[in-house]
Amino acid sequence: MLERIQAFALARAAEADPAHDELHLRRVVANARGIMGNLPASASVDRFVVEAACWLHDCVYLPKGQGVAGEAAQRSAGHAAAYLEELGVDTHLVRAVHDAVLTHSFSGGLKPATIEAAIVQDADRLDALGAIGIARLWVTMVSMGGAMYHRDDPAGSSRDLDDRSWALDHIERKLFRLPTLMNTEAGRAEAERRAAFLRAYLDKFLREIGARQED
Amino acid sequence: MLERIQAFALARAAEADPAHDELHLRRVVANARGIMGNLPASASVDRFVVEAACWLHDCVYLPKGQGVAGEAAQRSAGHAAAYLEELGVDTHLVRAVHDAVLTHSFSGGLKPATIEAAIVQDADRLDALGAIGIARLWVTMVSMGGAMYHRDDPAGSSRDLDDRSWALDHIERKLFRLPTLMNTEAGRAEAERRAAFLRAYLDKFLREIGARQED
Repeated sequence: MLERIQAFALARAAEADPAHDELHLRRVVANARGIMGNLPASASVDRFVVEAACWLHDCVYLPKGQGVAGEAAQRSAGHAAAYLEELGVDTHLVRAVHDAVLTHSFSGGLKPATIEAAIVQDADRLDALGAIGIARLWVTMVSMGGAMYHRDDPAGSSRDLDDRSWALDHIERKLFRLPTLMNTEAGRAEAERRAAFLRAYLDKFLREIGARQED
Repeated sequence: MLERIQAFALARAAEADPAHDELHLRRVVANARGIMGNLPASASVDRFVVEAACWLHDCVYLPKGQGVAGEAAQRSAGHAAAYLEELGVDTHLVRAVHDAVLTHSFSGGLKPATIEAAIVQDADRLDALGAIGIARLWVTMVSMGGAMYHRDDPAGSSRDLDDRSWALDHIERKLFRLPTLMNTEAGRAEAERRAAFLRAYLDKFLREIGARQED
């Protein structure tokens, strides 16, 4: 069953930008497996729900900056549920996948209500951090039509941050907040490692463009 | 005179992708100034030629992957020379800027014949390395329509590298070769620092996607 769901999701990802492509889905599933492998022994998790939701979490792709906040997650949840019903998946599992897809998104602002939904959210957020998150930051900038940084104040020391105009602002505005928003212990630990790498990257970037003094 | 040339170049950069925009031109000029500030006292350099060539080096923008190798540099050199003649710049300076623009490009494969051309080439190459080079790598991937990495062999351990299909291959195929190709001492030293950062990034990236073992 998961193989059919995966094939369906991969086909749909062909429409997305390189920050939300097949490779993103595979990484999110791998992240979720990593988190599931590090849960307390007492935790009871439905792996099918987690993996199905990871594959389907972006199954309705809206280019970044289009639609209202959380709209892509809402539409993906609806589409995922309809697809799973068609496949004959049990209603309570369909509902669980639906809810995990619905609550995964940052812009949607919803809190996951189950351990499965919490894992999916963490797994997706890990992909926004670290070396891979850096790659996705710049890819998303191209999709949104912004510039790398504000010419006169790249670090945003004396202006409001605006990550639609300047992609570098997105690091401070959203990405550095992710570790404290993680749901699971394993997710948070990995998020902190990846945020530390991102901080080193931002520092190096600002030094290279002359916006921060070299040591 | 340089102010007029700068304004002309910035206006033309508005057509380019975010890897070749106004910010790129400003960084290349800043890199060249950094190199000029670290030359041996005996070196005699025409600053006008260096800075004019830096501003004008991409004045004819061809999206990456279009045109034959070196075509953008050839056309930029011709366009720069015609523009400087119109401005009434001395013929020998026009020729010097033309040659520096012509030889700056990696794909063109030409060796700079003067110290000014050598500095322009180094200044542009520094922008392909380090944290800023990482950003430009992913931006250029989107322009060229490739994917981040080969799904089954991201590091390219057992296949030919192909940086038109997989952007990560570009690091090994081109970027790691740049330090040994630098012309100036200051350029080479900075290229080595930036290549070391790029190597740490590649290593972290491969670990995150499970293509290299964690320590």
